[in-house]
Amino acid sequence: MQPFLAHPFDSDRLHEECGIFGAIGVVDASNFVALGLHALQHRGQEAGGIVAHHPDFGFNSAHRFGYVRDNFTKPDLMATLPGQLAIGHVRYSTAGTKANTAIRDVQPFFGEFHMGGCAIAHNGNITNAAALRRELIERGSIFQSSSDSECIIHLMARSIQRNIPERMKDALRRVEGAFSVIAMTRTKLIGVRDALGVRPLVLGRVGEDGYVLASETCALDIIGAEFLREIEPGEMVVISKGQIESSRPFGPSTGRFCIFEHVYFSRPDSIIGGRSVYETRRQIGVELAREAPVEADLVCPVPDSGTPAAIGFAQESGIPYGMGIIRNQYMGRTFIEPTDQIRNMGVRLKLNVNRALIRGKRVVLVDDSVVRGTTSRKIKDMILDAGAAEVHFRIASPPTAWPCFYGVDTPDRDKLLAANMSPEQMREWIGVDSLSFVSLDGLYRAAGEAAGRDPQAPRYCDACFSGDYPVAPFDQLERGFRMKVGSETAVKQAAE
Amino acid sequence: MQPFLAHPFDSDRLHEECGIFGAIGVVDASNFVALGLHALQHRGQEAGGIVAHHPDFGFNSAHRFGYVRDNFTKPDLMATLPGQLAIGHVRYSTAGTKANTAIRDVQPFFGEFHMGGCAIAHNGNITNAAALRRELIERGSIFQSSSDSECIIHLMARSIQRNIPERMKDALRRVEGAFSVIAMTRTKLIGVRDALGVRPLVLGRVGEDGYVLASETCALDIIGAEFLREIEPGEMVVISKGQIESSRPFGPSTGRFCIFEHVYFSRPDSIIGGRSVYETRRQIGVELAREAPVEADLVCPVPDSGTPAAIGFAQESGIPYGMGIIRNQYMGRTFIEPTDQIRNMGVRLKLNVNRALIRGKRVVLVDDSVVRGTTSRKIKDMILDAGAAEVHFRIASPPTAWPCFYGVDTPDRDKLLAANMSPEQMREWIGVDSLSFVSLDGLYRAAGEAAGRDPQAPRYCDACFSGDYPVAPFDQLERGFRMKVGSETAVKQAAE
Amino acid sequence: MQPFLAHPFDSDRLHEECGIFGAIGVVDASNFVALGLHALQHRGQEAGGIVAHHPDFGFNSAHRFGYVRDNFTKPDLMATLPGQLAIGHVRYSTAGTKANTAIRDVQPFFGEFHMGGCAIAHNGNITNAAALRRELIERGSIFQSSSDSECIIHLMARSIQRNIPERMKDALRRVEGAFSVIAMTRTKLIGVRDALGVRPLVLGRVGEDGYVLASETCALDIIGAEFLREIEPGEMVVISKGQIESSRPFGPSTGRFCIFEHVYFSRPDSIIGGRSVYETRRQIGVELAREAPVEADLVCPVPDSGTPAAIGFAQESGIPYGMGIIRNQYMGRTFIEPTDQIRNMGVRLKLNVNRALIRGKRVVLVDDSVVRGTTSRKIKDMILDAGAAEVHFRIASPPTAWPCFYGVDTPDRDKLLAANMSPEQMREWIGVDSLSFVSLDGLYRAAGEAAGRDPQAPRYCDACFSGDYPVAPFDQLERGFRMKVGSETAVKQAAE
Amino acid sequence: MQPFLAHPFDSDRLHEECGIFGAIGVVDASNFVALGLHALQHRGQEAGGIVAHHPDFGFNSAHRFGYVRDNFTKPDLMATLPGQLAIGHVRYSTAGTKANTAIRDVQPFFGEFHMGGCAIAHNGNITNAAALRRELIERGSIFQSSSDSECIIHLMARSIQRNIPERMKDALRRVEGAFSVIAMTRTKLIGVRDALGVRPLVLGRVGEDGYVLASETCALDIIGAEFLREIEPGEMVVISKGQIESSRPFGPSTGRFCIFEHVYFSRPDSIIGGRSVYETRRQIGVELAREAPVEADLVCPVPDSGTPAAIGFAQESGIPYGMGIIRNQYMGRTFIEPTDQIRNMGVRLKLNVNRALIRGKRVVLVDDSVVRGTTSRKIKDMILDAGAAEVHFRIASPPTAWPCFYGVDTPDRDKLLAANMSPEQMREWIGVDSLSFVSLDGLYRAAGEAAGRDPQAPRYCDACFSGDYPVAPFDQLERGFRMKVGSETAVKQAAE
Repeated sequence: MQPFLAHPFDSDRLHEECGIFGAIGVVDASNFVALGLHALQHRGQEAGGIVAHHPDFGFNSAHRFGYVRDNFTKPDLMATLPGQLAIGHVRYSTAGTKANTAIRDVQPFFGEFHMGGCAIAHNGNITNAAALRRELIERGSIFQSSSDSECIIHLMARSIQRNIPERMKDALRRVEGAFSVIAMTRTKLIGVRDALGVRPLVLGRVGEDGYVLASETCALDIIGAEFLREIEPGEMVVISKGQIESSRPFGPSTGRFCIFEHVYFSRPDSIIGGRSVYETRRQIGVELAREAPVEADLVCPVPDSGTPAAIGFAQESGIPYGMGIIRNQYMGRTFIEPTDQIRNMGVRLKLNVNRALIRGKRVVLVDDSVVRGTTSRKIKDMILDAGAAEVHFRIASPPTAWPCFYGVDTPDRDKLLAANMSPEQMREWIGVDSLSFVSLDGLYRAAGEAAGRDPQAPRYCDACFSGDYPVAPFDQLERGFRMKVGSETAVKQAAE
Repeated sequence: MQPFLAHPFDSDRLHEECGIFGAIGVVDASNFVALGLHALQHRGQEAGGIVAHHPDFGFNSAHRFGYVRDNFTKPDLMATLPGQLAIGHVRYSTAGTKANTAIRDVQPFFGEFHMGGCAIAHNGNITNAAALRRELIERGSIFQSSSDSECIIHLMARSIQRNIPERMKDALRRVEGAFSVIAMTRTKLIGVRDALGVRPLVLGRVGEDGYVLASETCALDIIGAEFLREIEPGEMVVISKGQIESSRPFGPSTGRFCIFEHVYFSRPDSIIGGRSVYETRRQIGVELAREAPVEADLVCPVPDSGTPAAIGFAQESGIPYGMGIIRNQYMGRTFIEPTDQIRNMGVRLKLNVNRALIRGKRVVLVDDSVVRGTTSRKIKDMILDAGAAEVHFRIASPPTAWPCFYGVDTPDRDKLLAANMSPEQMREWIGVDSLSFVSLDGLYRAAGEAAGRDPQAPRYCDACFSGDYPVAPFDQLERGFRMKVGSETAVKQAAE
Repeated sequence: MQPFLAHPFDSDRLHEECGIFGAIGVVDASNFVALGLHALQHRGQEAGGIVAHHPDFGFNSAHRFGYVRDNFTKPDLMATLPGQLAIGHVRYSTAGTKANTAIRDVQPFFGEFHMGGCAIAHNGNITNAAALRRELIERGSIFQSSSDSECIIHLMARSIQRNIPERMKDALRRVEGAFSVIAMTRTKLIGVRDALGVRPLVLGRVGEDGYVLASETCALDIIGAEFLREIEPGEMVVISKGQIESSRPFGPSTGRFCIFEHVYFSRPDSIIGGRSVYETRRQIGVELAREAPVEADLVCPVPDSGTPAAIGFAQESGIPYGMGIIRNQYMGRTFIEPTDQIRNMGVRLKLNVNRALIRGKRVVLVDDSVVRGTTSRKIKDMILDAGAAEVHFRIASPPTAWPCFYGVDTPDRDKLLAANMSPEQMREWIGVDSLSFVSLDGLYRAAGEAAGRDPQAPRYCDACFSGDYPVAPFDQLERGFRMKVGSETAVKQAAE
Repeated sequence: MQPFLAHPFDSDRLHEECGIFGAIGVVDASNFVALGLHALQHRGQEAGGIVAHHPDFGFNSAHRFGYVRDNFTKPDLMATLPGQLAIGHVRYSTAGTKANTAIRDVQPFFGEFHMGGCAIAHNGNITNAAALRRELIERGSIFQSSSDSECIIHLMARSIQRNIPERMKDALRRVEGAFSVIAMTRTKLIGVRDALGVRPLVLGRVGEDGYVLASETCALDIIGAEFLREIEPGEMVVISKGQIESSRPFGPSTGRFCIFEHVYFSRPDSIIGGRSVYETRRQIGVELAREAPVEADLVCPVPDSGTPAAIGFAQESGIPYGMGIIRNQYMGRTFIEPTDQIRNMGVRLKLNVNRALIRGKRVVLVDDSVVRGTTSRKIKDMILDAGAAEVHFRIASPPTAWPCFYGVDTPDRDKLLAANMSPEQMREWIGVDSLSFVSLDGLYRAAGEAAGRDPQAPRYCDACFSGDYPVAPFDQLERGFRMKVGSETAVKQAAE
């Protein structure tokens, strides 16, 4: 299987590590989960899993590499997942996983406790996972996977609480970092977000008594579910027999939602934090046009993620919008490039320039972000080869200068272009006539904060731009990661 | 394998039946062919084949179901296709083919003649294939496939000409209909178009002495080939040792290029008939805005094929352009819909409405064509469900009222909405506030004919809109198809 | 994959549930393990697994359904299993396992302890597994599989001992039943047999410092290893750096080796308990000829397991030996039988009668055992259809009247023909001219006990024939199994 | 898929190239064909194909690599082959076939003629195929495969006869060599043998009006069909509506049946030429014991093909029979042998010596033939390693000194041990205490000719032993093959 990618230069993008979905109170819940995961496929393409429960047949599960549509559409497979309660997970592949063991790393994870079974699906990253794992192994737990998320189920197995929701609270209080978790017992569907609510989680209703939990609202739309509300930062909901119980196991807290969900991860048709992702992105384009105007003949998106911002930029600037770059809809992750003649044509496999449109024009290219910068250079080359008069890059996010430790796959800091160059150095290295990033304040304004970012109490987690980590990355600090000077609070917190 | 589709409602679209590509004078020609076919994948997704020739290893071939990227990227397979001369074919599946025999129908076809082998790849449709097949079988030919294109190779095998190019001319003079053919012998790459040039074929150069033939220029771009020119209607080129010989085996003729290539089949970044497909489509939008203006708040394309026309419509009308419909990039051809709750949600698997954008707006939806009309109804439902105030459909082609017999998979006439309803009936049936198709003259203007369509000598084949068939569909007439009253010329021609 | 079977009427045979193999001190140990498991394939055909350790690459594992030869021969897979230390397991499928989870049940099992990893491969059956599992789950262990053998690794994880061999002793002292276990740490290969030594385990040397452990000696032969000795009942060996340490963790004990290994499970070319399996089987034939002589023209084995006993019977009786039944070498587990005409021909798919040889003769058929008896009836029918004058069955084991709880897959007691009929009733039901089983004493004589079975201290476990269970089947008793009257000792033991 | 083999040293054996089967007048004929082919699997393991005809669904076909049991047992596949008339073919792989084209070489072949379709399955070899193919291509036929058998269907397509049976006679009169052919039209099942009847073909009845044709009688047994008779040399039968018409299209002739079918190819439970194959083989052992007696302690077959002759040898000589070599039932064609330690152990993967039985004994090994001799050397080594006192080889066929051109895959003459060495040289090269082959006369006696071979009119084709080719190998002579001095008759015949 050769999966294709949401962004044509996927290897030069940040990646969400997963999408999660759960359904209760609906006939053939696993089919709903399959549909929901299909809608969340952009959050993880490597593998997926579903666990379902049926009173007569107990817990059943299937974990598969590849797309949801290629696995969880087969009647033979789906028939093995009966019941009105199911959860599922799609995951992005992280580097270095060994091919012959990795299926064990595909969630949901399952544990049989003496009061019954429990499956969990986790989106996020546990910043003290290494320490927790060490402790659990010393006490006799046997890990099945190399996934940090497995800590949660072992912590639950060892909890002295009497029922599964209480055990989950017990476990998650030991866990640091960012997480949205969907879990199920034989009779309950459970959803939790960490105290800061870094990763998204929404609640919907389907039919009379059916409820679903999902990473994004687009996964509600696909099954025609009604969007009820977001699970709040620090909230746990336990759904059973049409009743929803809410609690706040981590005490009161203020959210710090991941702003990059607005920039790139989430689907444009999702609503997050009460805002349309599409509209936020379009507004970023508007902000960019105001902050960094340029005389030009054509505004082109780098497909597909730059499109809403490019539309906004064109609308604000009055420069015509056009499809200067055409994406091959059938592209795959790899393609042979065996001869000297063919080598280095990687970019054209996925994108082609609309030469007739570009020729002789001053072109504004709108992209969502710059990570390593290698892609930007290639695209610039393509545009110039096609005869553009000028190339101006406008980036719909601030410079990405810090790695994320909360569930996003980021290169090491020394690979991040913005961690090593000034904007002018970046412009020169990429080789364009101008390069501008939206400001952090501009991004906040586009995301609904009219006053921009409040440095004392920023509404979002923006660590990848600001280096301001709301949760100390414990394991990383142990491994020698150095936080930004001035982040003493977090460092102290970590030391405690 | 679950291929996904160029258009979200693929079953309600016309389909090109194939794309063809050939390369000579380049190292590892089969890799070039693989890349070219990948760029032409939109012309046929069901299966593909490559034949290559190497002086030491002779002819080798591989035919596979599925995408180019999933098969012809495997080093093990490509290593079996050595040589500097290769041709290939991608094909769209036609209904009713039996799964366990169809690989024999995948081109290129190969025949061993006593002067050496020959492989051919055919795009188009032979309108007298049934009659030819009957005759050939009576004379002792054994057909390997159910494909009409196989007639060509059998006609060549029986030709009394001395060399393969002459045999090919001999054979193609017996063939009626529309065809672009790429063929190869041990030393020659051959390209031919029928006298009317209904289907496209272009010539490019790569490196010093390398030449390529392709259905569209986008397949030249992917390998960095220089676009030299189109093969002319009625022209045959024979390329060998860096030399190109041109001849006109069918005598002088005037082209009637398929206008639907501009509307839908070809990729927007291709140049055909000297025109940018993207620009033609954008101009159709401009024409539509002039012919059928409407007061509205938002212009949305039906992704992805409606996009250029929507951009043109927005630019001409001044109504803002927006992405009101979001396409799932991971959609497949099928998805289970097993319960009543889930049934009938087919559309949302592939598309989702950007509800926040649509709500309360008067929306102009721009789509490329209406075939059965079922899709238009579903999209209208989605848009209204999302709270649109009004829905106006603008179609970037005239009503499709006649089947194509020249290489496009069209429903029977009684399934074509426009063959059975007036525009107003169609509007009512679809259930929208207004519905307008671009006029045939408007389409010709967008395609570069400032004066519109010349009924005496139309520049394009537009039979699917006009019922004016430039070549009598012999086999179809035998099966009882009734041409439009007034098409006596063609009928007479068929009788001769 | 359609595995074929060691015996043509496999579903009417008892089955060994696994074969185990380990190697240390050899280059590419996993290849040795693959070869050893291939030689032990008759002990389990459903699935196999290998774990290997390399100082640089740590522990790696692969578990696959199907034959060793179809999986562990692939260079790509074997390259993922580097190192000089490896263990492996082949397993027979037990009824009722769900297809989509069963790969988790394939051994070896692996656990990461804080002093390092440990993998184990288990042959046998734990008679108190259900109780152990219940206890472990209550204490917070999470089981990965439905296999009873997993208890061992969890018991080890919770042991308070400091090193892995001691933890293994600790764990196995809690385990009741029959087991031969091969385990590995990063540096050690470990072998253990339960106190009664019910299941086999042998030690061999290969090259200078290489050692191997295997279920049978035939797995030493395949790699040219020298057979050193059996691991003794109740013995543990720990092999490291060319040194073998032996200990007796369960105190002094007397062996009760499974006599059915001699009758059917083991390969005829293996040496077990100091005896050639082939010779034991041939001697059973000799005993049968003495105990139950008959006038006849031909002695035929039921292929393939009855062959040595048939040779012995022919030699002792002087009746000519012949291949009256020919086995199809390409048989599979299933074959369609869709029409009335074809139905009920199951037997002939696998066996055919050598009609020319059989016709008109008085035939002695020698088979290894009678379980349900259905096979015997079908074979009798075939032989009579072919024109035999008389059919005499001679069975190379006593009547199988009791289920095995020590690692052999046996039908429930009410399915065992001998549990429900007298020998004469069996003869009548099968429909043959005579039917004789070797006596239990005769079997012991053939197995080297000149005086026959000593009822006070039988040398072998013969529970399947005698109902004398040397270890109380704890879980089974809990589920309501009723032991033979007079087995009070075992029952008491169970109650403690 | 890793097929396993009928003989453990398959690469050192001659191979039948195919088995054929046809059924008419039975419900679901393709199932009968599948069963028949399964019984004939020993005649060809690489691939198989079935063509079936149903009045409503026409001709359908399936061709697959691998065993019959792995493909033609799948209900989904078999459901695509409806009808009461079907034929099939299993084939042995010949060297050098390219993997990506070979499925086209799998029979049956099908041709559509204007009087309807026809499928054929061919066992044998056409000695003038190259010449025929050349001629057919010159006349405009296009070959689909690299198989010589395809000539037959093209000759039929070009015949001027009016119906298919007459066209088949027409075609086969042009064909030289050895062939048994089963063919089918929409309503008829046809069987033919060449004038000499070199390859076998038998006729059976099943149910009331059902008839089957098969290579061997064992394929009748599996479906419970009654063996009616052999098709005679030079006979054609046409079966339709329960009627059998017989004709002799090649005039009167005397048969020369392949004697190697008795020695090795056919299954021991088949009846050919009115004789039991098993009994012939046992008698060869008897002849060997008379011709080449030896003092010894044990007679062992080389499994499995040497078994009947070993039984005969033991019975005639009075030396005890035993299983000195045990075959691994799960062996595959390949197994990795990557390290020096493991290298050269190939033999033990498939066979193991029963050391306890062999040690100290003087052993007579009975094998069916010696081709290259490499196997015999390896087996000798194994037996001596196990401690045998003496090793005596007795071979159940004369020295194989000439290649077969009539449908058997033989090495070139310079690879045949007996073509290059005297018996004493062979004994020395193999390294055994004695080596004897049965004489050609002895073989004829065992095959029912009490007077031995009549050199003027031998009953069998024995060219592989005698160099006396009953049909001149036209293509081979053209390629330079030199026949035995004194075979002038055949050479003359070829020159005509």
